[in-house]
Amino acid sequence: MHYQHEHPENSPEFKGLNVSKGVTSAPVVNPYFKFQRRRSQYSVNQFVDGLLAHDISILGQAVTLVESSLPGHREIAQQVIEKCLPYAGKSFRLGITGVPGAGKSTFIEALGMHLVRNDKRLAVLAIDPSSERSKGSILGDKTRMEQLSVHPHAFIRPSPSAGSLGGVARKTRETIILCEAAGFDTIFVETVGVGQSETAVHSMVDFFLLLQIAGAGDELQGIKRGIMEMADGIVINKCDGSNVEKAKVARQQLQNALHFFPKTESGWIPEVLTCSSVENTGIADLWKTTENYAEFAKNNNYFELRRHSQAKYWMYESINEQLKNHFYRSDIVAPLLEEKENQVLKSEITSFAAAKQLLDAYFKGV
Amino acid sequence: MHYQHEHPENSPEFKGLNVSKGVTSAPVVNPYFKFQRRRSQYSVNQFVDGLLAHDISILGQAVTLVESSLPGHREIAQQVIEKCLPYAGKSFRLGITGVPGAGKSTFIEALGMHLVRNDKRLAVLAIDPSSERSKGSILGDKTRMEQLSVHPHAFIRPSPSAGSLGGVARKTRETIILCEAAGFDTIFVETVGVGQSETAVHSMVDFFLLLQIAGAGDELQGIKRGIMEMADGIVINKCDGSNVEKAKVARQQLQNALHFFPKTESGWIPEVLTCSSVENTGIADLWKTTENYAEFAKNNNYFELRRHSQAKYWMYESINEQLKNHFYRSDIVAPLLEEKENQVLKSEITSFAAAKQLLDAYFKGV
Repeated sequence: MHYQHEHPENSPEFKGLNVSKGVTSAPVVNPYFKFQRRRSQYSVNQFVDGLLAHDISILGQAVTLVESSLPGHREIAQQVIEKCLPYAGKSFRLGITGVPGAGKSTFIEALGMHLVRNDKRLAVLAIDPSSERSKGSILGDKTRMEQLSVHPHAFIRPSPSAGSLGGVARKTRETIILCEAAGFDTIFVETVGVGQSETAVHSMVDFFLLLQIAGAGDELQGIKRGIMEMADGIVINKCDGSNVEKAKVARQQLQNALHFFPKTESGWIPEVLTCSSVENTGIADLWKTTENYAEFAKNNNYFELRRHSQAKYWMYESINEQLKNHFYRSDIVAPLLEEKENQVLKSEITSFAAAKQLLDAYFKGV
Repeated sequence: MHYQHEHPENSPEFKGLNVSKGVTSAPVVNPYFKFQRRRSQYSVNQFVDGLLAHDISILGQAVTLVESSLPGHREIAQQVIEKCLPYAGKSFRLGITGVPGAGKSTFIEALGMHLVRNDKRLAVLAIDPSSERSKGSILGDKTRMEQLSVHPHAFIRPSPSAGSLGGVARKTRETIILCEAAGFDTIFVETVGVGQSETAVHSMVDFFLLLQIAGAGDELQGIKRGIMEMADGIVINKCDGSNVEKAKVARQQLQNALHFFPKTESGWIPEVLTCSSVENTGIADLWKTTENYAEFAKNNNYFELRRHSQAKYWMYESINEQLKNHFYRSDIVAPLLEEKENQVLKSEITSFAAAKQLLDAYFKGV
């Protein structure tokens, strides 16, 4: 089972990364290339065969390949992914978000162990676009997921780094494809909730779980605007010891509050549960709830509809992101942007006039 | 006071629209042009002087000019708007959304009359991007706002039509500038909530009010996902007759539910009120609440921060919309789009591969 907490480019796996001979023609100067070519190299087909044979070692190397930014690696990765596509999709994808302090790692360990003990094969991925974290993501801390990190049927990976949320999301989605081809039937995608990362996770999972703890008094602290409405389920962790009463009260109040939320698209009524990761209570019930959702959504076709919708979403999201990058990074626009913004803020020109001036300059130059 | 319910291009005002001589050089074939040039024409300065003199007749013509799609008219309009900018901004902008049946027109009449009786000068605008409605918008129905529509200190205008929400939003924002320059100190922007119109209204007002009615039982029906979190205030209408108890119960429950929503950016705690537009109760209290908000937000600087944020939002929104239009309408991309989407849905290629293929084709051809 592969496990890595360093930045991909410095990892032992990367240094010994086996890539096909096709890379040698790539116009990239990289000191590792000579090093790599001396070692035996996997072709695209060797990668794919290995994945389909559920070879975790090859899965680890394939994921590292996907996370690499080198053009040569990206070409190979794309071919591997495309060949894996027909074998992907057959898993249940669970998104997990929670503020620091909610006990996410312990929770993932508890739920993850429940699953692998029941013969599931679980991949745990993460989305965390901030670069400091990718060097020390919670999931990189082995001490927090002691049992799960050494279980033969679990594959744990910290967030890729990519410079933008769009890049991180893409690499994660591609990693999901590889994990599914390699026989993992359950995928967790977790996030600490920086920026728009909850939206990204929500857009690539079948069930979005919000991990909470009871706050001081009767309020549930720390839920960002818009996140509660994304949740298919909410679980209040740390329902143990002196916390039990508070957690139960919070559960009831939150369930009541959800009553006032508009109906979900699926027709599913989000449930609020309690659990204790440390005492291992409520975990099985929580998993039963997600299984109930899967059955419900497969019966009314929403499950497939949601996946199709997500696939389209990422196509358009990717297009829009690239269009904006090309515009805002262009030599024509970049020097003018701040000036136009200031003119708008000082009410010298309207927002629309500023936009038009920048666009005219851009399209003229392009 | 101007009042119009027909499509702008067919309105009596448009037919007699006075435009400056500059228009004659515009390369547009328009049968009205000859007709217009025979009449006396307003220059940009005449428009501006008239607006600053609070001439409602000129305001009506200026708004019609802004709503026009003809390139010649847009040029003149832009100049008028730019000269009005220094005089704009000194108003309180209230957004109002509510489902059909919530009694929006009667409510606007009741609140509007309260304001103009207290020496306010009120402009009522609307955002409604669906083209069928623009020919018969609720605000176009004179019978629903009998008193307000004939009050000398009220200016009522139905939604502009523009083919896209972005276009409608732009024209509405520009109309706000003209109204403020013409001395209106209070602006309502209302919407029935089609598509993303609530988001658009929320992004151009100081206070976003959700108009509700008590549903069957204890639920509040019909609130779209994400809208409740946008609200600075919620008012439950039709709190009269046999409805009173139900409305008061609903008010209490909704106030309790709001307790679980994350804090607003401003620090303001949204209030839930009741009112009866027909019996004219709760209206003054509602207005007092918005005044309290204005004071609160001006004291902690959020008022100005929000306006700056909105100005920037519209600049970037406008840029992004145009970039996407150019891409999706291009001769290169349009024929390929459906095919790529289908390949993605059939898992033949990934979302990102599809996006890349389309982008490569687009940038090659551009």
